[in-house]
Amino acid sequence: MDLEELAGGLPEGAVLTDPDVLASYRQDWARDPDAGTPLAVVRATCTADVQAVLRWATRHGVPVVPRGAGSSLSGGSTAVDGGITLSMERMRMVEIDPVTRVAVAQPGAFNAEVKAAAAVHGLWYPPDPSSFEICSIGGNAATNAGGLCCVKYGVTTDYVLGMEVVLADGTALRLGGPRLKDVAGLSLLKLFVGSEGTLGVITELTLRLLPAPPPACTLVATFASVEAAADAVVAITATLRPSMLELMDNGSINAVEDLVRMGLDRTAGALLLARSDAPGGASATEIDAMAASCRAAGAVEVFTTADAEEGEAFAVARRAAFPAMERLGTLLLEDVGVPVPSLPALVHGIREIAAERDTHIVVVAHAGDGNTHPIIAYPPGDAEAEKRARIAFGEVMDLALRLGGTITGEHGVGRLKAPWLPDQLGPDVMALTRRIKDALDPDGILNPGVVLSAQDRPAY
Amino acid sequence: MDLEELAGGLPEGAVLTDPDVLASYRQDWARDPDAGTPLAVVRATCTADVQAVLRWATRHGVPVVPRGAGSSLSGGSTAVDGGITLSMERMRMVEIDPVTRVAVAQPGAFNAEVKAAAAVHGLWYPPDPSSFEICSIGGNAATNAGGLCCVKYGVTTDYVLGMEVVLADGTALRLGGPRLKDVAGLSLLKLFVGSEGTLGVITELTLRLLPAPPPACTLVATFASVEAAADAVVAITATLRPSMLELMDNGSINAVEDLVRMGLDRTAGALLLARSDAPGGASATEIDAMAASCRAAGAVEVFTTADAEEGEAFAVARRAAFPAMERLGTLLLEDVGVPVPSLPALVHGIREIAAERDTHIVVVAHAGDGNTHPIIAYPPGDAEAEKRARIAFGEVMDLALRLGGTITGEHGVGRLKAPWLPDQLGPDVMALTRRIKDALDPDGILNPGVVLSAQDRPAY
Repeated sequence: MDLEELAGGLPEGAVLTDPDVLASYRQDWARDPDAGTPLAVVRATCTADVQAVLRWATRHGVPVVPRGAGSSLSGGSTAVDGGITLSMERMRMVEIDPVTRVAVAQPGAFNAEVKAAAAVHGLWYPPDPSSFEICSIGGNAATNAGGLCCVKYGVTTDYVLGMEVVLADGTALRLGGPRLKDVAGLSLLKLFVGSEGTLGVITELTLRLLPAPPPACTLVATFASVEAAADAVVAITATLRPSMLELMDNGSINAVEDLVRMGLDRTAGALLLARSDAPGGASATEIDAMAASCRAAGAVEVFTTADAEEGEAFAVARRAAFPAMERLGTLLLEDVGVPVPSLPALVHGIREIAAERDTHIVVVAHAGDGNTHPIIAYPPGDAEAEKRARIAFGEVMDLALRLGGTITGEHGVGRLKAPWLPDQLGPDVMALTRRIKDALDPDGILNPGVVLSAQDRPAY
Repeated sequence: MDLEELAGGLPEGAVLTDPDVLASYRQDWARDPDAGTPLAVVRATCTADVQAVLRWATRHGVPVVPRGAGSSLSGGSTAVDGGITLSMERMRMVEIDPVTRVAVAQPGAFNAEVKAAAAVHGLWYPPDPSSFEICSIGGNAATNAGGLCCVKYGVTTDYVLGMEVVLADGTALRLGGPRLKDVAGLSLLKLFVGSEGTLGVITELTLRLLPAPPPACTLVATFASVEAAADAVVAITATLRPSMLELMDNGSINAVEDLVRMGLDRTAGALLLARSDAPGGASATEIDAMAASCRAAGAVEVFTTADAEEGEAFAVARRAAFPAMERLGTLLLEDVGVPVPSLPALVHGIREIAAERDTHIVVVAHAGDGNTHPIIAYPPGDAEAEKRARIAFGEVMDLALRLGGTITGEHGVGRLKAPWLPDQLGPDVMALTRRIKDALDPDGILNPGVVLSAQDRPAY
């Protein structure tokens, strides 16, 4: 392949081919053991660089894998053998227009950098994946990322007002703009959000900002059972809008308590962590109402605080579930969602799968929107245990689908879950997906194997 | 055309061909003088009826115009000569699942009927076009309709969780479902929202519901100039989230006062109408903060009330702008949007256009999101005046585009604005739009002339 031709159209040093460097770009956080090795890594510095790469790739039929911060949990930026990994890590500018209340960000900027730039002006970019300190805003848009505050504030697509995107043939388009309402033409903007690099490469985002939220009050409640906690979730969300509503099952409570030793009740069947950021001093009123709902649902203990630091300690404990489980082995992180009333059935079904497959699974969940993260851990290097864990991984998706749910609530389909997508969408929606893909990327060079997989579900 | 074959696959009486009936389905609220006459009107009763119509239409190459309540302001359901107008008026069921907090609605149900069904369970469907009492929820989804509370609560697409949609070839698809977060596959759901019947026919919607909002407080403030009012809008939205933030210019104040006689200040350059529905009794706190922002921006008079009836009287006055102007002539209703800081430039530019074209234009605006409705009135039957009004209609769109705005914020492109769409989107985005259209509706039978127009801008 003529890499010199490629390099000739790009800034000095943009094309990397050193084997050690290539190796470091093979995997993302999904740690796909079947990751390929790229032909080259290109670190784009501007839209024209992205266009040059895509024109070259189209000319030569070379696959292109767009990559933000490489923090995908579903293998969305896993390298392809013989392909170009197109990294956005050098495109990091963020500009704030405080009057129009928008951020204009390049895709490589971290979510936290957008938040920080907005905060300088007393503004706020709400979407908050747990990985917000190390994930890119371009990846957030490509996966339509969620987070903890989404239960009240919505997901990434609700904040994307405009973008610049480069199509497979190198054409750069501007979609939308700094307008809160705009229905001129098809919702192409929304089609690219969540398209996981399979339809185009996002080179700039215009993001809606909100005024900074008022100080929050926090609630922690423990319950004998997941059912009781789910009842509380239904009761709370029927009457008010918490800005966070997280659930931990007994397994995750214990894993976290092993790590942080903050006195969580190890016997609890479930723990709820809730927040209100209602304005004008009403957050305490809302937290009291949530506490009443928890007690009515049979909560064992209910603790509330208006102290920001104390409240944050509990949020840190919730986010510690992932590192806590990492101490127990290699992880497979699930992302299934179900309608909120089906949460107990999901958690119990997962417990049965774990028992049957002799693997360790704990559950943390964005309970308010039914999005759960079962975390599967197995001993590193134990091939049999890994196989059982991977079987369980698939069975959790099957279970979610039986409960009317989704195989992915916020991480994306990536390569890891692509073989399960037809089970959720069915042949007609898959055919329509293929029609759209073919219309936008006729040569199939953009992130092949992501979303639309050539592979069947693994047969164990 | 073999209408007997069509009727044979549909319930008794579904196919209407009486000339008087056909005439009553020619136009929608855009009152397009160039509306066609349909070959037949089909009133579908279920998804299978819609499939039968589309299969027949594909077989015979007959255009199909989907129609909800016929309240389109941009000609989105204007009949086509020789086509089928496919009415959803008999598909009106609404079911609420109060635990999962979703409504499942057929497309012909009115927005107000969805709101009412939700209210029975203490729940709320937020999007509120001014026409909510007589517009259909299917039309709302097809146009991604907005409204007054969207400044805080978002537009229709933010509430569409799932849909059933029938493609041009008669295939019925289910997209999304009752899940608050779901990123499995491309955002096809969002692509159909706002597609104005050009990609498929929506036969069912799954809609997100919120808890009923707390009682609201209302503010009315008058300003010497639109600039001062816009300054207040920027200041208010920089620090809090009003649930309504409307602007009336001097012309609309006077037109409304002529009709309702409630003592509005006829000399004011602009009037702002704002609401807070902050929970826990904080709405009064927020209204006080908004009042302070208005005074700081130089408001002449500021009035606030916590009385729901009194507050509603002002909202009624705002909504009276349309009937008030109807008394002055035949109307052309604009829907352009600009970034909020450009509102004064837009209002002044419109005043210049009105003077130059010797036509009457007043402006009401959803100021909080920069979406404006310039209302153009001309004497009925005066061909010269109509021509001048239509020139002004186009010039207002040109002006909005020069200010970085959009030709339509919430009404849709329809047939009326389609000739202007290329000016906003440019050739590359239009080409992509065409590619998507061709992929989904290869024979071009779905709502031809809407969004993608065969016609150029009228040359005057």
